[in-house]
Amino acid sequence: MTTPIRIALVGMGKIARDQHVPTIQQDPVFQLVATVSTSGGSVDDLPAFASLEALAASGVAVDAVSLCTPPQVRRAIAHSAIDQGWAVFLEKPPAATVSEAIALRDHARARGTGLFASWHSRHAPAVEPARVWLADRQVLDASIIWAEDVRQWHPGQDWIFEPGGFGVFDPAINALSIATQILPQALFVEGAAIDVPSNRGAAIAADVSLRTAAGAPVHARLDFLQRGRQRWDIAVRTNDGDLLLSDGGAALSINGDSLSVADALHGEYAGLYRRFAEIVPAREVDMDLAPLTLVADIHLVARRTEVDAFDW
Amino acid sequence: MTTPIRIALVGMGKIARDQHVPTIQQDPVFQLVATVSTSGGSVDDLPAFASLEALAASGVAVDAVSLCTPPQVRRAIAHSAIDQGWAVFLEKPPAATVSEAIALRDHARARGTGLFASWHSRHAPAVEPARVWLADRQVLDASIIWAEDVRQWHPGQDWIFEPGGFGVFDPAINALSIATQILPQALFVEGAAIDVPSNRGAAIAADVSLRTAAGAPVHARLDFLQRGRQRWDIAVRTNDGDLLLSDGGAALSINGDSLSVADALHGEYAGLYRRFAEIVPAREVDMDLAPLTLVADIHLVARRTEVDAFDW
Repeated sequence: MTTPIRIALVGMGKIARDQHVPTIQQDPVFQLVATVSTSGGSVDDLPAFASLEALAASGVAVDAVSLCTPPQVRRAIAHSAIDQGWAVFLEKPPAATVSEAIALRDHARARGTGLFASWHSRHAPAVEPARVWLADRQVLDASIIWAEDVRQWHPGQDWIFEPGGFGVFDPAINALSIATQILPQALFVEGAAIDVPSNRGAAIAADVSLRTAAGAPVHARLDFLQRGRQRWDIAVRTNDGDLLLSDGGAALSINGDSLSVADALHGEYAGLYRRFAEIVPAREVDMDLAPLTLVADIHLVARRTEVDAFDW
Repeated sequence: MTTPIRIALVGMGKIARDQHVPTIQQDPVFQLVATVSTSGGSVDDLPAFASLEALAASGVAVDAVSLCTPPQVRRAIAHSAIDQGWAVFLEKPPAATVSEAIALRDHARARGTGLFASWHSRHAPAVEPARVWLADRQVLDASIIWAEDVRQWHPGQDWIFEPGGFGVFDPAINALSIATQILPQALFVEGAAIDVPSNRGAAIAADVSLRTAAGAPVHARLDFLQRGRQRWDIAVRTNDGDLLLSDGGAALSINGDSLSVADALHGEYAGLYRRFAEIVPAREVDMDLAPLTLVADIHLVARRTEVDAFDW
């Protein structure tokens, strides 16, 4: 057992408290040494700072940072952290725009620091078995349904419906992160219809037509107003049977038969930090921009329809 | 003088006839050997084919192809051309989406064939002098005005207002190709307001807020309904004087004084083909995706407003 990786958390909102703090505290590979928050959030008795610059000036020894800030400020903070020589873990999406994400990737490569664009849904337990099963099969078509109730999962979070807040693409980028991981070919956007509430600036529902590089059609139905049973499903028909990945990657069935899926790591974030533990010492840049690029491409080609105003 | 590069033109629309054919025919480095067109366009007595597959099967010896097709079909054709081992010249934009352009770049690298994402405006005569002048100066702010009359420049071309047709970003991507070439830092999109006519699916005007990696604000005003004097101007204020690049890169003034700009190559397309002549034998991939990525990013973060219907 080597020395733990000394890590600071930046941006102490809900995802940091619900996922990052407990995951880091339960993983002996990491040692949480500080927090950074503009709103004063802290953890136990750890040193807490108001900015990355204050952390850097403090003398606290840091090997890596996890950035859980809103994406709008993530690039500048990540850039500074890379300049400090710290490895950087980026919550999803890795930046507010594709251009920013590319610049971060290039900067980390130039400086030789570790950088990780995390996609937590890829670490759901049934994703890797699905990828393996599909790897040597020919995809005929696929269907993504990502339908959840924004009032249940993001109550009162107006930022999500601001321009650049991603709207229904905030959860749907998880679906795209899984689809780009399990399908054996790249995905391209052919067209999209996006519904935007009359009083909001981001999508509340969308229908997206994609195609694999091999020509198979992939349809995605995204809905932020789903009542009753919530659905996070990806169904794939192949030349050799059908796959259904459901519950956001937690459950897998082949030709209608459920498979037992082990979750050895007990959670998506445990898997992410297991991966980050490889990235830090290797100074690796693991920055798959395909999910974010697809979301930008969808907005580039989409036809928009104004729909009923949305209020909480 | 070595053997000419044998080149075929694919997609025989207006840009192929107005620019590519005369440029290739005047350049001794290239020899136009065939055309490919689904609508039957041809040049002189050259062999004409209805598809890339027909050209490949014909026995006509080809070293390179220039793709002037609509962007929606460009990826598949470019992919096939790369598989043939032919170098590929892509008209702008290099593909319909960023994901497609990245896939082409990766495919050409894997196959070791030449690939060129052309940005013709970068070869306007005053662009390189502007880049050199700005290279060692600190940019304080910049302003882009790209205002032209779509009825004059694209009369009756309904495709430009279809979703994915780019609308006013069809000309504005030229401005972004120049700005990303002459400004010494990368550009990022912070916000945008896009006007879409009530009967159309793409922008007719836009205001875009960008920022350089060093923090300098850059504003772009894009308008497709400009009457009177057409404007394609980029103004840059620096710590050491002001630059105005006007007429789409044809004219340059520094602190209000016009500079004489030589156009040794007699046109943007002569410059593009001069560059392609380097790319083909070197099997180089020259694929700067920054302009296309910025256009996608703008659509990702934009607030949209429905404006008056547009008719020709």
